[in-house]
This record gives sequence, structure tokens and C-alpha cells, in this order.
Amino acid sequence: MIGIEQALSWVLERATPRVPQRESLCQSLGRVLAEEVISDIDSPPFDKALMDGFAVVASDLRGGRGELMMIDDVAAGDVPCEPLQSGMATRIMTGAPVPRGADAVIVGERCQLDTSGDIPTVRIDDRDVRPGQNILRRGMSIRRGETVLQAGRPLSAIDAGLLAEVGRTQVLVHPQPSVAVLATGNELVPACDVPGPGQIRNSNGPMLCALVSSAGGQPVDVGIARDTEAELAQQINRGLHEDVLILSGGVSTGVLDLVPRVLRDLGVEQVFHGVCLKPGKPLWFGVRPHAKGPRLVFGLPGNPVSGLVCFELFVRPALAALAGQPQRPRASVPGKLTGAYRQRGDRPTYYPVRLERQGDQTLVRLLDWLGSADLRTLAQADGLAVFPAGRTDYETDETVTVLLL
Amino acid sequence: MIGIEQALSWVLERATPRVPQRESLCQSLGRVLAEEVISDIDSPPFDKALMDGFAVVASDLRGGRGELMMIDDVAAGDVPCEPLQSGMATRIMTGAPVPRGADAVIVGERCQLDTSGDIPTVRIDDRDVRPGQNILRRGMSIRRGETVLQAGRPLSAIDAGLLAEVGRTQVLVHPQPSVAVLATGNELVPACDVPGPGQIRNSNGPMLCALVSSAGGQPVDVGIARDTEAELAQQINRGLHEDVLILSGGVSTGVLDLVPRVLRDLGVEQVFHGVCLKPGKPLWFGVRPHAKGPRLVFGLPGNPVSGLVCFELFVRPALAALAGQPQRPRASVPGKLTGAYRQRGDRPTYYPVRLERQGDQTLVRLLDWLGSADLRTLAQADGLAVFPAGRTDYETDETVTVLLL
Repeated sequence: MIGIEQALSWVLERATPRVPQRESLCQSLGRVLAEEVISDIDSPPFDKALMDGFAVVASDLRGGRGELMMIDDVAAGDVPCEPLQSGMATRIMTGAPVPRGADAVIVGERCQLDTSGDIPTVRIDDRDVRPGQNILRRGMSIRRGETVLQAGRPLSAIDAGLLAEVGRTQVLVHPQPSVAVLATGNELVPACDVPGPGQIRNSNGPMLCALVSSAGGQPVDVGIARDTEAELAQQINRGLHEDVLILSGGVSTGVLDLVPRVLRDLGVEQVFHGVCLKPGKPLWFGVRPHAKGPRLVFGLPGNPVSGLVCFELFVRPALAALAGQPQRPRASVPGKLTGAYRQRGDRPTYYPVRLERQGDQTLVRLLDWLGSADLRTLAQADGLAVFPAGRTDYETDETVTVLLL
Repeated sequence: MIGIEQALSWVLERATPRVPQRESLCQSLGRVLAEEVISDIDSPPFDKALMDGFAVVASDLRGGRGELMMIDDVAAGDVPCEPLQSGMATRIMTGAPVPRGADAVIVGERCQLDTSGDIPTVRIDDRDVRPGQNILRRGMSIRRGETVLQAGRPLSAIDAGLLAEVGRTQVLVHPQPSVAVLATGNELVPACDVPGPGQIRNSNGPMLCALVSSAGGQPVDVGIARDTEAELAQQINRGLHEDVLILSGGVSTGVLDLVPRVLRDLGVEQVFHGVCLKPGKPLWFGVRPHAKGPRLVFGLPGNPVSGLVCFELFVRPALAALAGQPQRPRASVPGKLTGAYRQRGDRPTYYPVRLERQGDQTLVRLLDWLGSADLRTLAQADGLAVFPAGRTDYETDETVTVLLL
């Protein structure tokens, strides 16, 4: 049986980023850029006033003072009528183009406008005046032809503004992976039904769909397949149209566990079956070759805790890789056990816990299971405490690592 | 001019959670539950086998040993044919109902099946056998009529599984707030156009729409309004159909800043105009009364850094409140300045920075602005360093707080 690291590396080797697609700006938030973005314009596209005030020739103001003739009035969106010459000033608003010839903008509070005569004049008193003041020169932020965003970057909200600034309303990004979710088992009925004798509702399907969404994937609920070769083959075939297929149940070694066989018959090559991990040992992983990169197939154990652990350790990193995201170590915190823990068996164990704050410390409370199918207790978990293989007894107050959910 | 705390509390007082709506399970991820969820069934709905093996009467096994008659074979989804009596065993699979009369399940590895005779028998050797072993009793996880999720809870992926388990494919949640985004200014052209003389592309609109998405809101792009009363009134009216309207530009004190007047004429009551904050001083906030809770209107300054700061400090918390989310302090980290900083003016300042790791330390590098319109530099920011009012000089290596973006 292979270890967790080995299993993850075998998964990631096969999780090649999806073929880039052109997406609209508003669809591209959080997606990973798959091209270099180059500006089609200088930005700002003209010398731009950064304050409301008057555009002047700085050298006209000896000691910061002077009286100038106001020849024009330019708001944002306007174009100055004529170039500015010595002795003249143009009233200007933030964001408006500075007239040719001007080299400084004096803020309004330092200017006194006099419109009593035939020609309005402005008296200025700004001791600190210097050329370039309150002007952002054309192309200072971005030059035409310059790269503004590199490929490989997950697009942020600010990037959306930057893309708009350089005229990119469509960008090439790695699309969200689509992920089929198929629950298997004769005992399952859809959540909208009332279970009959011996039946339970399919809760893994909705949980896995929601986990896929939370991991940036696009879930496709394929429903339930009963444990017959024909039904499994039909539903698995539907699921193989997506980038990833997640099966729940049918991979442990019971008499009715047909799933691995049906997958093989459908051309899905097994990469591994079984990982040294608790819970989650029966995890099955395989690929079906495909022109756009292999389809990944995960067979998760049917019990929800095992399914969750396998999803977090293997499926979530795979979905990030398919989306072109950089692999990041999972967020974890150290914390002190509130009770002793005895590790049974020799597999590394991920145990659902609740975190509590006590002053500066994080306390780790092991959740009290009623067995592996106990979703209700699982819903209270804040994270998974990690107990590596090779140790059996953990004391109260010992520090352990908790992966955050 | 009011302070940041005062302004935020005035915003939050008016940001009442949206009227709950019934949503499908897959639409409800991340939404806040607005009802108590009660189970319609016991879970598990029957005494359930937790392992593959044989269901037995524990007292039949003296010292853990015995030979029993196999009378039935039950898989998950099956119903046992007959109750179990002393001396008998039923082969059983994980998830299957334990037959009446049985009180323990012995794992398969401890059982030897012999089918050579007329009636199959099973020889068992399990020293640790005890009543209740490997059985999850009916209703042990959840009792019918019991509350499984409380109102006020943001729904997680695991909750989705739990909701499915208790048959809730529709739940009452506070919906995402809808947020109209309107950029104002004569100089603006849509991002898909090439700006003419004096014009720039509308980058604030797409940035704000993306920020709204990142804050769990549903952005509605209302486009651009030029600085005329008629056009502003028309577009603002469209925006007032949504829960929130965010305007960008038109709220500082320039000649063309018509926005506050037009808002008043449309029945939007000003709550405040101006906050002691840098950048972001011109922030305008008001409400229009509405049967389902007041429409919130934010007038953000037009420069992108100011807009971003105002969004993070006021709009994001408001959107969380409208979605019924608990208010959480924003994630922040301490870090050491890589250079000196001189605070100008007396307003608390939020300054875009880049964070770098150096061993155990977080370094805070102030970004080198080219002026307030410089989105390109802003796109490199990891967070906003907070410089409270009342101090002017910060030295290299001083520790400051950084709000993470």
C-alpha cells in the first residue's frame, strides 16, 4: 500500500492544467491567467491633472506667486482648446487633460479667481510650486506594448480593473474543472425521497458537490447508480464526459464492490487502489486518456468522513492543478489536545476536531464519533488533527497539527 | 467629519439581513441559514452494520468462539428476511440493516464460512466480542424531530450532506445581496472601446463588480453615467432596484459633482458625506427606504485606491450583514516596515503594501505610487498598512498592522 505523499504525487503528475479558454472579464475572477496581457494604450493616455485647480507654467510663479489670465476651463472628459503660454492659466478638474505648455497644477485652495474684468484672472500663492506638480504624465503608469500581467497569475478583483484599463474584456484563462459526482449503492435514495426499509438518503452526493464548488470546480451531479454492472457502466460513462469523475462508495473489498471492475472495462486505467491512511484506505484512483488531458477518476470510500479526508488530501489539490493554480500547502494551525488520544493501527490518521480559543492558545477537542457515518458530528468539525504513523499514545496538552477545513 | 468607527456603525445599523428565501441545496452553499432544520427521520433509520461480516447473538459465543448456522445474506439496501435466533448468523455488508435479534457484527476476517453441507455454517473466533459491536443503532446519530442545524449558520459543504440526510433539498437562507455598480464621469468609455482624446476606460466598474463577487454579493453592472442630471438620475434609478448601489466618482467637491444632489432628488437620504480617512475622505453614504429593508447607497471616490479602501472598510462588512453573516474582524498580520514612512495630514491612513517573508518575519514594503490612479501598482498589493491618526514618523523596522486583501 502506498503512502500519502506518493499517492498525491501520482495524482498531481496526471492533473495537467485544462486547455485555456477565452472568458469574459466578469467570469475570469479567481481563474488563472493563461496569457501575457499587453497594454494597447499608454496609461494615463494623456498628461492628467491629479487635483482640481489651475494648470500653469511653473516658471511664471516667482516665489510661488503670480496673477495669470484664465483662458480655458477643462473638466474630465474635455479636451483643452488651446496650448497654454506664459502668463496664462487654465481651470482644470481632476482627471482632465493638462493643456500643452502647462507643467504644473495648483490646487484650487491656493488660487483666487477674479471674473470682474473682461478677461478672468487668477491670483496664485503656492510657495511649494514645482514643475510636474499634481500631473501624472502620459504613460507613467503603463506604456503601450508593455506587459501588465503575466501568465500563471490567479486574477484578483484589482486585476479586473487593470484588464479593463488596457481594454481586455476577454482573457485567456484556465477554466474551472468540471467534476461529475456519482454516488453508488443499492441502499441510496435521492435526498428528496423518504427512505424505505433498508434505505438511506444519498448525502455524500450533495456533500461532494458542495466540496467541489468550494474548491473552485463546477460540480455536475450524476445522481445515484445501483450496484449493477449495467447501471454503473451507464452512469460512469456519463461522468467520464467531465474533467473529473468522483465516485462515492463501491471501492472497498466487499462482495458487491464492482466499481473497479466496471471502470477497467470502460478504459479507465488504475493508478492505485489503497493508501496507507486512516480513514480513507480504500481510495481508488485512475485515469482515462483523453485528447485534452486525461480524465481523472477518484473512487472515494462511501463513509462520509473517509470521503471528506480523501477529498481534502487528494481531490482538492488535483482540482487546483487542473485550474492552473499553484499548489499551496494547506492552511494548518498547531493546537493542544484537550484529552488523550490512542492511535490504533499503523496508518497516519486524520481525525475531525473542534478548535477552541483559550487566551493565546488553540485547544483541539477530538470529536466524539458515533461511527463513520456520523455526518452530524462531522458538521461540527473545524479541522482534521494529524496523527502521523508510528506513535500510539498522545497525552492531554500535547501539541498536534490541525488542517483547517 | 466623522471617524471610521462611527461611519461603519452607521452603515451596519442600516444593513439589515435580506428577507430569507427558499433555495435549493446546491445554491445554498455559503449562505446563512434562516430557519431551524429539523430531521424528518431517525438516522440511521435502522440498526446498521458498520463492517462487512456476520450478524450474531453475542451471548452465543463463549470466549468469543462458536459455530453458527448461516440463515441469510444481507447487503446494503436489502431487508433481512427473518429475525435472528440463538445459534444463527446472517452474513451482512457494511450499511445493511442488522436483523432483529442480532446484537453484534463480527468482522469477516474472524469468520470462516463452510458451505459444504446442506446448510452453510460459519465458525467464529473473536475474543473481544461484545454486544453492540460494529452496529450503529437506529437514531443514534439523529432522532426524528430533533434540530440538526440552527438558524444563523453559514452553510458548509458538510452541512449540505447533513441537509440531504434529513431530506432538506430546499432551505430557507438569506440570499446574496444584489449590488448595482455605476461608474460616473464624462471621461469614461467602456473597457471594450478605445478612448478618444481626454477619455479613459472605465476600470472602476469591473474592479468593483469583482470586489462585490469576492464579498459574496451578486454584481449588477449598470455601466457608465455621464455627469448630467438626466443621465445620472436615469442610471441611479436603475441601480436602486438592487439591494445596494455603489457609485464610483462624483462625490468629491468639484464643480461637476452632481451625484449627492441627484441622489437626494431621488429620495435617497444622506447618512454621512465625508469620513476622516485617507484615502477615501469623500465617501458618501445614504439609504432609500424600502419595504424589504432600506436600499444602501455608497458613493465611492473615483480614484481606484480610495474606492478599494472604502469598499474594504465599509461595503464588504455591509454586504456580509445583508447576507446575515456574523461580523468578523478582518484578517490582519503584523509586519516590519522595510522603509521609513512619513504620515501627512491628520487622518488615519490605509496604504497599499506588499508582504515579504524573511525567516520568521513578515516584511512590509510600501508600494511606490505614481498617484492615486495607478491601478498597476495597486495590483501588486497584498494588503493595506494601517497608520493611525496622531503620529507622523515611522522608522524602518517598526511594526505595523496590515489588513490582508
